[in-house]
Amino acid sequence: MEKVRVGIIGAGRIGRVHSKSLTNNIPEAELVAISDKFVESAKKAAEEFGIPNYYEDYHKILEDPTIQAVFVCSPTNTHADIAMEAAKAGKHIFCEKPIDTSVAKILETERVVKEAGVKMQIGFNRRFDHNFRKIHELAKNGDLGEIQIVKITSRDPEPPSAEYAAASGGMFLDMTIHDFDMAAYQAGSPVEEVYAVGAVTVDPAIGEAGDIDTAIITLKFENGAIGVIDNCRQAVYGYDQRVEVFGTKGAAAADNDTETNVTVSTKECVSKDKPLFFFLERYMQSFGDEVREFIKAIQNDTEVPVGIQDGLAPIKIAQAANLSMKEHRPVKLSEIK
Amino acid sequence: MEKVRVGIIGAGRIGRVHSKSLTNNIPEAELVAISDKFVESAKKAAEEFGIPNYYEDYHKILEDPTIQAVFVCSPTNTHADIAMEAAKAGKHIFCEKPIDTSVAKILETERVVKEAGVKMQIGFNRRFDHNFRKIHELAKNGDLGEIQIVKITSRDPEPPSAEYAAASGGMFLDMTIHDFDMAAYQAGSPVEEVYAVGAVTVDPAIGEAGDIDTAIITLKFENGAIGVIDNCRQAVYGYDQRVEVFGTKGAAAADNDTETNVTVSTKECVSKDKPLFFFLERYMQSFGDEVREFIKAIQNDTEVPVGIQDGLAPIKIAQAANLSMKEHRPVKLSEIK
Amino acid sequence: MEKVRVGIIGAGRIGRVHSKSLTNNIPEAELVAISDKFVESAKKAAEEFGIPNYYEDYHKILEDPTIQAVFVCSPTNTHADIAMEAAKAGKHIFCEKPIDTSVAKILETERVVKEAGVKMQIGFNRRFDHNFRKIHELAKNGDLGEIQIVKITSRDPEPPSAEYAAASGGMFLDMTIHDFDMAAYQAGSPVEEVYAVGAVTVDPAIGEAGDIDTAIITLKFENGAIGVIDNCRQAVYGYDQRVEVFGTKGAAAADNDTETNVTVSTKECVSKDKPLFFFLERYMQSFGDEVREFIKAIQNDTEVPVGIQDGLAPIKIAQAANLSMKEHRPVKLSEIK
Amino acid sequence: MEKVRVGIIGAGRIGRVHSKSLTNNIPEAELVAISDKFVESAKKAAEEFGIPNYYEDYHKILEDPTIQAVFVCSPTNTHADIAMEAAKAGKHIFCEKPIDTSVAKILETERVVKEAGVKMQIGFNRRFDHNFRKIHELAKNGDLGEIQIVKITSRDPEPPSAEYAAASGGMFLDMTIHDFDMAAYQAGSPVEEVYAVGAVTVDPAIGEAGDIDTAIITLKFENGAIGVIDNCRQAVYGYDQRVEVFGTKGAAAADNDTETNVTVSTKECVSKDKPLFFFLERYMQSFGDEVREFIKAIQNDTEVPVGIQDGLAPIKIAQAANLSMKEHRPVKLSEIK
Repeated sequence: MEKVRVGIIGAGRIGRVHSKSLTNNIPEAELVAISDKFVESAKKAAEEFGIPNYYEDYHKILEDPTIQAVFVCSPTNTHADIAMEAAKAGKHIFCEKPIDTSVAKILETERVVKEAGVKMQIGFNRRFDHNFRKIHELAKNGDLGEIQIVKITSRDPEPPSAEYAAASGGMFLDMTIHDFDMAAYQAGSPVEEVYAVGAVTVDPAIGEAGDIDTAIITLKFENGAIGVIDNCRQAVYGYDQRVEVFGTKGAAAADNDTETNVTVSTKECVSKDKPLFFFLERYMQSFGDEVREFIKAIQNDTEVPVGIQDGLAPIKIAQAANLSMKEHRPVKLSEIK
Repeated sequence: MEKVRVGIIGAGRIGRVHSKSLTNNIPEAELVAISDKFVESAKKAAEEFGIPNYYEDYHKILEDPTIQAVFVCSPTNTHADIAMEAAKAGKHIFCEKPIDTSVAKILETERVVKEAGVKMQIGFNRRFDHNFRKIHELAKNGDLGEIQIVKITSRDPEPPSAEYAAASGGMFLDMTIHDFDMAAYQAGSPVEEVYAVGAVTVDPAIGEAGDIDTAIITLKFENGAIGVIDNCRQAVYGYDQRVEVFGTKGAAAADNDTETNVTVSTKECVSKDKPLFFFLERYMQSFGDEVREFIKAIQNDTEVPVGIQDGLAPIKIAQAANLSMKEHRPVKLSEIK
Repeated sequence: MEKVRVGIIGAGRIGRVHSKSLTNNIPEAELVAISDKFVESAKKAAEEFGIPNYYEDYHKILEDPTIQAVFVCSPTNTHADIAMEAAKAGKHIFCEKPIDTSVAKILETERVVKEAGVKMQIGFNRRFDHNFRKIHELAKNGDLGEIQIVKITSRDPEPPSAEYAAASGGMFLDMTIHDFDMAAYQAGSPVEEVYAVGAVTVDPAIGEAGDIDTAIITLKFENGAIGVIDNCRQAVYGYDQRVEVFGTKGAAAADNDTETNVTVSTKECVSKDKPLFFFLERYMQSFGDEVREFIKAIQNDTEVPVGIQDGLAPIKIAQAANLSMKEHRPVKLSEIK
Repeated sequence: MEKVRVGIIGAGRIGRVHSKSLTNNIPEAELVAISDKFVESAKKAAEEFGIPNYYEDYHKILEDPTIQAVFVCSPTNTHADIAMEAAKAGKHIFCEKPIDTSVAKILETERVVKEAGVKMQIGFNRRFDHNFRKIHELAKNGDLGEIQIVKITSRDPEPPSAEYAAASGGMFLDMTIHDFDMAAYQAGSPVEEVYAVGAVTVDPAIGEAGDIDTAIITLKFENGAIGVIDNCRQAVYGYDQRVEVFGTKGAAAADNDTETNVTVSTKECVSKDKPLFFFLERYMQSFGDEVREFIKAIQNDTEVPVGIQDGLAPIKIAQAANLSMKEHRPVKLSEIK
């Protein structure tokens, strides 16, 4: 089968992650170009990963007729516009999350993509995490029976600056969005209603900037299951990423991944490794696997595993969570337009 | 120091648990009488545990001037009345939970007990569980920093009958009440507001009887921490009792207790014991320790570790949770009179 | 069924452990007398556990016709003689390990006990430990297939004094003897050959006193399985007691028991409890269960679960291990007379 | 820094593993040629990993003046000869284990390599395993105090055929050789004496072919520590690879690696993943890291981390173990010439 020729738009952190996966682990793809407004970043990535072309202007990638697929790794507020341009140029699209923070803009993107007849996958990489995928498959296969409760713990190792928090659209859109996607993925059902409680327990400056850094969000799913997510912008012991699904036939729970399986016993205590530091360490395997699935979907002309509607759903949940917190009441997803 | 002479009112399951602790593990106490409306139960317990006297009428115990303390292990709806009679008879009281389901009645009991100048301890045994007590002490000593999130999982191995559920006052008063107490105990703060989501996922008959069998309850504590409890009337793998406290300096989490620490590895899987079956197995150590503390408080004339206000608080939370579920909104504890 | 009337000879540490079990946990037995050369110890135990009679001279116990069973908890070098006297007095015997360090004396004891027609159980309590018993049962039931390898780790939290070590008959007779019994118990087969490597890595004074404090002992069992025991007189992290049995259908491994199941995660590490401190904490459940089984064997007139031959076998293995270390070669059990 | 140009001799399983590492994970190296007697294998690897040249005759690689380093991945009995040829051709050498089964031949290889002034690293990849390296570093840094006991469990998931076993030089040379290296690596000391007990518990045909499939090997190290290895050719639950180091300040123990950290709780049991299947899954990370270290040693002209003497030592231990088993006695390493 012929290799899929790929270009990457955006040579920041996530652009580099995908560059590495495509170069080292996806022999079915050929990474032929990378672009970045800061052309030095594109140049550096090109050298490091042996990418033949680099550009300042991403249109060079869209104009290259030999390129079949692009990865949209640019700043969030450009995702939808670039994706639509790429669709019109006939490229398949792998778009980092979120597509946009506006529901209308996402729906517009969907329309354009459909018209262009290209594929568009959203970068909810955690669905491809070895632990969470195993739980999902157990749930999907019925091994856990009817799903009753989904629990997600998601805590970052270090808080962002208050400036970042303020600009991020709020914690729910910036951080919890992954968990909203995971919750529906594990429940096997869309979310119907949200109730969110937020608090500022880490950094008062985040509170002054109008955001929260700690939250518990209760979810009702359309299939009758219920769920809860707890978030914090800082866990001093590291990146805490756990999922538990409880059903009528059993429960499956994923503990954190660690660097080693070594237990050290001393006079003071019996200790084990802390969780892997942050998402680049914890989710590296999933970043590779989502790209592999995307390339495979192009080669076999099958559905991408995470589509635009999957990208839209968590945005709506995040908006409902924000409304719930603001109005101090449960909010139905149907209220969000 | 002289032994504390004790009588037990009610020879059912929990009366027998306390009989056993008092006989075998609390040399500082002497169990001298037991009563039960079904006198055969009292007789049987008396024989089994070597209790010198048994009665049909608990007044015989209240009238015995050599008895210093009584354990109220009778049906729930008699707790408050018997406790007040006992107080008037000058007996110290160990009262099973809940004192009553009416806030007014509990406050009346408190007044009577105060006037009588006797001690009254409430049977929230889980506070004495080795795992949960360790977490509580870490939190209280500041080892976890400021408490941010309290999480409790509490699932029973087997659902009650729908009849029992209907008569129990609802799941929140019957089952979650222990978790409401645990949440405040671990947060180191009273609950300020509750939001409850309930579902019927185990037994439709429970739903038809007007109750729920599955729930997620979000809590706001007065000290700014937030918390969540998830409950289910049936976990097929057994009694699931876990607590996690997360703070600015670290987190402490208690896993389930098991019969052995043996891991068995076969062609099929690597397996460990299921959780201990139910509360009699799981909490036996705590049932002994709460009684030991009660006897010690009498001997040393110190405060009992779990007082009437501790018995009142979870009742109010349960009522708030019921109201929240009914009116589909968060409810402040201050709304409950 | 009538209670078995019991006397205890020796009010030291282990005599007190059995006093407590018999008083609190074995309603089928009645502890009626205790004796000790240091009569104050006997008196103190009598008061603490409510034993009606205490004596300086253990013959008082043997002469009491109402006593059916005695526990020999006196110094090791008196075990066999007292057991034989007790047998002649028609008492059933629970004898602490080792019966004696001389094979001939043990065989003599066996003859006397057989002639007297009484039961004699040896205090290898670890066979009754919840973890090790589960492994034993899995092995015995064939769940692990043919047993191939038995591994035992047994390390004490604190070394004895060099004086104690010198007087103890050596580490193999004093400490490893429990592991020799456990090895055969788990392999389901007697030991055929031993090879022992010893070292002094903890306390040079123990070496100067002619003993070792660290060892690895390889075992061949008669059924073709092989095994290994590793010992150390000091593990700074606490009492390390683990057993692993590996067979053609699977493996079972027991980890250490701990005070709680709490995991604490901080900036520094993720830690759990250290193992329970020493044998009184770790094996308390087994001390109770072995006594319960002994009383039951008397009441039902059945075989005791650990007989004199079970008491003899580890003595012979220990002697073979000593010879192996001295002569620096594997030693067959058949060489030991 | 300039890339190190590399050729691989032997395109079998391990040659492909190194091809993959060099291509994907070691940007400091450039894999320019691969050879195999079965030229189709070389061709296939060349295509799969994008290696520009492939040959039937490995001399083509040795004759290429641009190639600085070769990987000897040919059959065991050719390792030493090819390594010497490569040394004479001025190539640095990465040689799979064992260098040879003859001590004399290994010493000859060492002489030739020294004269040629090239580097030669031996493929004891497990030293680079994340778990075992962590233990090694704790031990080396003194965090565990003086090393007292080293324990290694090493069991394969599936036995080889009896023909393979017969031709392999015996289990100690074929399988335990990795564990002999690991034991000395963890003890921080050469082995001084060996005592080996072998058994046939898996496949009688292996016994008939003159080999064993199960063993316990006791080791004395020169530094006074003692150790034990247990081996079996088949563990039905999978590849069991554990190391434990016990010292005067503490112990470190590595558990098996698994595919996920998910726990599944059902009516039947609480289960976790089985160990990773076999060495390709379990040790993939270490195969990459050993190559990275080799390339780095060439670039920086530093010592290779695993030298010829490291390759020699386990051969001598294996021969001593064979002699021990044959003569049924402990054997000193100094007896092996």
